[in-house]
Amino acid sequence: MNPDITRERENATFNVEKLTHILDGGIEKTKRRREIESLVISDPDFQSEDLNFLSRSERYDAAVKKSAQMILKLREYGISDPEEIYCYKSVFRGNHHEPLDLHLAMFLPTLLNQASPEQMETFFIPAWNLEIIGTYAQTEMGHGTHLRGLETTATYDPATQVFVLNSPTITSIKWWPGGLGKTSNHAIVLAQLHTQGKCHGLHAFIVPLRSMNTHIPLPGVVVGDIGPKFGFDEVDNGYLKLENVRIPRDHMLMKYAKVEADGTYVKPPSAKLTYGTMVFIRSMIVGEAGRALAKSCTIAIRYSSVRHQSEIRPGSPEPQIMDYQTQQYKLFPLLATAYAYKFVGQYMNQVYHRITGDISQGDFSELPELHALSAGLKAFTTWTASEGIEVCRMACGGHGYSRCSALPDIYVNFVPTCTYEGENTVMMLQTARFLIKSYRQASAGHQLSGIVSYLNESERRLQPQSVSSRPTVVNVNDLASLVEAYKLRAAKLVELAAKSIQQELQKRVSQEDAWNNSAIDLVRASDAHCHYVVVKLFAAKLGEIGDTGVHSVLSTLALLYALQGIQQHSGDFLQVTTTMTGLLSVPQLSQVSQRLKELLAQLRPNAVALVDAFDYCDEMLNSVLGRYDGNVYEHMFEWARRSPLNKTEVHESYHKYLKPLQAKL
Amino acid sequence: MNPDITRERENATFNVEKLTHILDGGIEKTKRRREIESLVISDPDFQSEDLNFLSRSERYDAAVKKSAQMILKLREYGISDPEEIYCYKSVFRGNHHEPLDLHLAMFLPTLLNQASPEQMETFFIPAWNLEIIGTYAQTEMGHGTHLRGLETTATYDPATQVFVLNSPTITSIKWWPGGLGKTSNHAIVLAQLHTQGKCHGLHAFIVPLRSMNTHIPLPGVVVGDIGPKFGFDEVDNGYLKLENVRIPRDHMLMKYAKVEADGTYVKPPSAKLTYGTMVFIRSMIVGEAGRALAKSCTIAIRYSSVRHQSEIRPGSPEPQIMDYQTQQYKLFPLLATAYAYKFVGQYMNQVYHRITGDISQGDFSELPELHALSAGLKAFTTWTASEGIEVCRMACGGHGYSRCSALPDIYVNFVPTCTYEGENTVMMLQTARFLIKSYRQASAGHQLSGIVSYLNESERRLQPQSVSSRPTVVNVNDLASLVEAYKLRAAKLVELAAKSIQQELQKRVSQEDAWNNSAIDLVRASDAHCHYVVVKLFAAKLGEIGDTGVHSVLSTLALLYALQGIQQHSGDFLQVTTTMTGLLSVPQLSQVSQRLKELLAQLRPNAVALVDAFDYCDEMLNSVLGRYDGNVYEHMFEWARRSPLNKTEVHESYHKYLKPLQAKL
Repeated sequence: MNPDITRERENATFNVEKLTHILDGGIEKTKRRREIESLVISDPDFQSEDLNFLSRSERYDAAVKKSAQMILKLREYGISDPEEIYCYKSVFRGNHHEPLDLHLAMFLPTLLNQASPEQMETFFIPAWNLEIIGTYAQTEMGHGTHLRGLETTATYDPATQVFVLNSPTITSIKWWPGGLGKTSNHAIVLAQLHTQGKCHGLHAFIVPLRSMNTHIPLPGVVVGDIGPKFGFDEVDNGYLKLENVRIPRDHMLMKYAKVEADGTYVKPPSAKLTYGTMVFIRSMIVGEAGRALAKSCTIAIRYSSVRHQSEIRPGSPEPQIMDYQTQQYKLFPLLATAYAYKFVGQYMNQVYHRITGDISQGDFSELPELHALSAGLKAFTTWTASEGIEVCRMACGGHGYSRCSALPDIYVNFVPTCTYEGENTVMMLQTARFLIKSYRQASAGHQLSGIVSYLNESERRLQPQSVSSRPTVVNVNDLASLVEAYKLRAAKLVELAAKSIQQELQKRVSQEDAWNNSAIDLVRASDAHCHYVVVKLFAAKLGEIGDTGVHSVLSTLALLYALQGIQQHSGDFLQVTTTMTGLLSVPQLSQVSQRLKELLAQLRPNAVALVDAFDYCDEMLNSVLGRYDGNVYEHMFEWARRSPLNKTEVHESYHKYLKPLQAKL
Repeated sequence: MNPDITRERENATFNVEKLTHILDGGIEKTKRRREIESLVISDPDFQSEDLNFLSRSERYDAAVKKSAQMILKLREYGISDPEEIYCYKSVFRGNHHEPLDLHLAMFLPTLLNQASPEQMETFFIPAWNLEIIGTYAQTEMGHGTHLRGLETTATYDPATQVFVLNSPTITSIKWWPGGLGKTSNHAIVLAQLHTQGKCHGLHAFIVPLRSMNTHIPLPGVVVGDIGPKFGFDEVDNGYLKLENVRIPRDHMLMKYAKVEADGTYVKPPSAKLTYGTMVFIRSMIVGEAGRALAKSCTIAIRYSSVRHQSEIRPGSPEPQIMDYQTQQYKLFPLLATAYAYKFVGQYMNQVYHRITGDISQGDFSELPELHALSAGLKAFTTWTASEGIEVCRMACGGHGYSRCSALPDIYVNFVPTCTYEGENTVMMLQTARFLIKSYRQASAGHQLSGIVSYLNESERRLQPQSVSSRPTVVNVNDLASLVEAYKLRAAKLVELAAKSIQQELQKRVSQEDAWNNSAIDLVRASDAHCHYVVVKLFAAKLGEIGDTGVHSVLSTLALLYALQGIQQHSGDFLQVTTTMTGLLSVPQLSQVSQRLKELLAQLRPNAVALVDAFDYCDEMLNSVLGRYDGNVYEHMFEWARRSPLNKTEVHESYHKYLKPLQAKL
């Protein structure tokens, strides 16, 4: 064990194990998680090779091998609870993805949600046993987040009772679905349903792609890998061009909408029934943002405690780089953010499960709010986490660029969350739509409830007065007071966006153009709303924590999170009211800066313990810089020597090109 | 040609060719650049394969091949002017680096600058003819920007008249130099010189690494590739462990410092003599930031003009995504930034060449200012450009993740500039050191000249009054007025940082701790200083432009650049003065937001023409999304089909793992 990192652990002021229990949701959950993790770690079949040293085809090959092993192991151990499967997979896949992800996370769940009982009978067991290997083919080359624009067609032919599927244009080729290129023999294809001469919009169809015996693509199916990407090297994201592919009528998923034998279309009872999955996945992504950032902070903070560099005092030994204020300022706010997002993820998960109960009872009342919240928070957290991972990576100096740091993998495999499951700017605008609608309802005298109740007319009318009459209303040392400040900022920015739309309308532009011409303000309003929600939930979480030591350190983190947000958006907080007086005054902002520095110094002795509490074992981090024992350099040398270029002392290119070049010059 | 992109070009309001001449530095330079580019493009030897489809060893192999070809071609064409070589290389290497980069950019120039006439005789011609293939080995595993910390030793033995080189610890192993792993047979090694029992600090030594006949590493030389990285896949960044490696006395570079036969050490006449190269490289990086961002903007803006998605008005066709205000807000300020950095790069280059003349005359007076400026601007521009490349990439939706967009390559091969040649935060603090020193000189009554003259006491004393007596002193429509605002902001933030140090000192901490405890403020001050310089230089450039159409569009860009900076740092501009009145008022900030939106709309018709003016040919961009003809989708499909995973219809992993898995379930 590196003595620097040992000393860091000795200096911690709280019980790390207790904080781990809070993050897991209880002592029993920590125990079970560790049991599952040790199943993987101790399994000789899983002593994996370093994917970084392989070619893409080898990486894909290794990933298929691991996926297949994993499925056998899960069955062997009888692990079937989704959370436990998730936990098992997290260790096992490290910072990577796998070709069967969409089979497990999209194909099977979609069957469960949208297949009729007869279809379940036909498809579920073969899919469960991987005779049917499926993916979910929605995105097309020319069409992403805007689903109505999808072009693939499924035209019903009553004479033969089949659907004929086609990709009518180049932009309609299915593009991006994971596992589509080489792995899957079936796909759930989203296509525009045409029957009896009418288009009824998007519906889902089970389309066989490859022979279940030979795995060779079926007639009319043009399928393949879309080529190398930024990350996801081990996944065969694919393309699919359908050329008059005929599938039986019962291959349309018919739990809700139906096409009868004669071609009669039967509408689904509610359009919102397929809505839930999307909300669920976006909520999961929020938690993922917390985890990706937590891993990155673990690596960067541990490394910062063993890395010595430069000098503060001339002649003294090189200090740990974590002693530099600039390093603390890079990493500690991100550490606070990781905690914040983990708690927000927990909250979203709870809300989702509560609302799911309501939905199954036919009560959709809370769905719009959850939908708006999950869209905005997905964007808000993935943007910040992506940037944060890169900050962590660059805080490791040159070694952050080495693949052995794991940070490049964490980045490239996380950053796509900014784009998939709803492009982030579009997500922000969806949340804005809900905020503006709520604002207008409040203006019209309706009393709002839930998270947007701050938009109620009565509250808004109170704000300017309370601010102007009490210019020091915000106490920068009091979290509750800061939550209020974030709330008032959100209220103000929603109002500004609404007013921008109003002003545009007064120029006699259309509703739609007014919306587009206010889009910058709308995104800003959503951002402020999400920021408020995160600060509020972090503060609320503190209320649940009994242990004094843990409560104290988490309170410091929460304050740091809130104050740093204020510093980064100081303009908003200075200008937020309509009067000339801001929500915060200029002297208060100096106080914020001063307080931030104090909080950094205060957190310094607990930094390593705070990342230890995330409890990522070395096998999950797979990072030389983030090793628990801090013995970085000897292991980096060892890792480097395994580089494929070191297999021979002299690379063949020397004989092929350099020696001949020397001869010619 | 895609009709959308043709229409864009027809709508431009200025002459693209004239702007290209300005960017190149004159019509003749444009002509010559294009001649050189066409030499590469029309050369059948350079019809390169797509590196994305190769394994790392194959990529390295292909890169060595290209490097060797390039050197032959340059000799064949008689291209020897450094700028022309740079131009030739830029086309030829696309978005990648090459194993011989350090031989050409560091080994040869270091010989030229630091070798004695006798050493030039011995080493230069063999190096020029690539008998000697060299690299520059400075960074060690445990030591980067802080050079004094390097541990490698070179101990002179007068008995045998050799230097004995050693890597005494694991952290002293040379780590990262490009071309060190497999390509080079020599390295210039930076090591602590020990002679006659004393250490004289870092000096440069020419160390043979591999046999010039067999390329096998020499005794005592442990050398190899450091493994895969985030980018630089085709470069063999290497490690080097020296175990009692003995080199003759004349292998120490002795133009300035010397070790005589008996071991007597002779000091160099000035410590600043080796200073210039670093300044030059950092200046080059500023230009590189402009180019990387210009390429990224070219790709994202062209793609945004042919990509249709979603809807503004229901029922209307899907608009070009460039019509969304949010898309304009992402891309146009970056376009303005790319122009700004290109002009700053031109300026730095001119200043460097002017000062180099002075330096060769023994006049170092301007060097500290240029050193401080190049350090800060290197950090300022590389951080912004790196983030900007990612914004461009994500503005392309899912396809920005495909390697065929080229944006992943541009990012991973540019972002290391944030770390190499001086880690950015350290660079910012170096600039801050100059600013604080200047501030103190001014406070002590000295009259400053040059770029920091705004710190003069007299000017500073004027500010609060001028602001408070004229609260609307800043005209948000007038660039000159905005330059003043940036200047006042910089002055204020330098003052705040100086005062923070002062306050720390009053707490009786040491100078060094006071500095570290103010580091956040110091970085902020440097940032504001650099921002001021960039805005000022952009404004100055406008003065040189005669053509009305070009002047008009560049003025719009400059205004956009300045106003967006104010919006992003609105807190600074609101709180910048010590009085309660800010530099800008809250209503003025609303004006800034409004004006920004107008400028986006104003730039919209010129966006494609503005990226066309950068004049990157398709061969240099190597991006399917950035194609000049806008025919994106058919080429993406074609590219994907060449993916190595598509070589067979059924990947072998199916037979190896999936079929057996199905049998077991």
